[in-house]
Amino acid sequence: MTHGRFISFEGGEGGGKSTQVRRLTEALEDKGIPCLATREPGGSPGAESIRELLVRGEIGRWDPMTETLLHFAARRDHVATVIEPALGEGTWVVCDRYTDSTIAYQGYGQGVDISIIEDMHRKTVGNLWPDATIVLDIAVFQGLDRIANRGNGRHRYEEMGIDFHERSREGFLEIAKRNGERCVVVDADRSADSVHDAVMTFIARRFGV
Amino acid sequence: MTHGRFISFEGGEGGGKSTQVRRLTEALEDKGIPCLATREPGGSPGAESIRELLVRGEIGRWDPMTETLLHFAARRDHVATVIEPALGEGTWVVCDRYTDSTIAYQGYGQGVDISIIEDMHRKTVGNLWPDATIVLDIAVFQGLDRIANRGNGRHRYEEMGIDFHERSREGFLEIAKRNGERCVVVDADRSADSVHDAVMTFIARRFGV
Repeated sequence: MTHGRFISFEGGEGGGKSTQVRRLTEALEDKGIPCLATREPGGSPGAESIRELLVRGEIGRWDPMTETLLHFAARRDHVATVIEPALGEGTWVVCDRYTDSTIAYQGYGQGVDISIIEDMHRKTVGNLWPDATIVLDIAVFQGLDRIANRGNGRHRYEEMGIDFHERSREGFLEIAKRNGERCVVVDADRSADSVHDAVMTFIARRFGV
Repeated sequence: MTHGRFISFEGGEGGGKSTQVRRLTEALEDKGIPCLATREPGGSPGAESIRELLVRGEIGRWDPMTETLLHFAARRDHVATVIEPALGEGTWVVCDRYTDSTIAYQGYGQGVDISIIEDMHRKTVGNLWPDATIVLDIAVFQGLDRIANRGNGRHRYEEMGIDFHERSREGFLEIAKRNGERCVVVDADRSADSVHDAVMTFIARRFGV
């Protein structure tokens, strides 16, 4: 049985990750590839209950280290109960955010030591990194502008300050540079169709599908 | 200003920890020592919300590593927002459970690598260990018997199997043996008055109060 591929979408708020997760999943399924769309924090019943603690309430309700631990608790549950079983059955997993978001947000954005985050990743989910990561890059003010126009309620991370989002964006770009064999940066300041075409070009080159 | 002392009570279910926390706190206050009684998991608004995820629901709802991460998320919040500020103001903190419980329950009881738990402690709460730890030791069947007679609902840990509780009890005794300068084991199979007397004798010898 073939092991499934693990693909993550990363990047700041308002870059269109959830739309692109859905479109890639549909495109892969059209090619006959069994596919699971999921997200972090969340993606399993336990992790979704932890997500509530992370996205609701006051911006300052957790300090950055507590927040990091909650993200890894949710991730461990998601990996153990959803991602690894799916990959083991040959299903491809397309995930909206993964550990890169913890490095960019809690590390670059909130100042947690990145080596501690990487160590926590190894200790709690081992070597499970995506086979491919697509960073949807957009200027901070444009991304936040898109969210403002979306109309539904904003969550804690969306409410955090511009400086936090600028540092996190730099973090995602730095992560992509350091992991060039795994990551690609896609300019998200264009139509969803155009972004999707760029994603499919990358996926075809990467996996031959 | 004097830095407060940090005292933890440890041990299995039904050993009378919450009673002894209350009695020690009252006795210290009678001596004019400002004192805070608290508990883990919990003890701060954030940590109490994480506690709900840990003590409610099915026994198998979290795997041991996820559970360890949730305990440290709660602990980090509790330490940062309650324990360290109190100690810094000169208040003595008396806590029902701390990291020893994670080592005994998730480590000895559920099989998480103890060096990973100790490392997570260092990375997330630094060098904050209690100045004194009292392990209330009681035979597993007797402790569980006391809980059964208590009448109120049982939480997840109380519902876990006898083997888990036997391994955890051995863990607490092993921790006490390895940390002889910090820990004392008190036989909890006697009246609350008698246990309290033993606790006060230890505290007097240890802190001269």
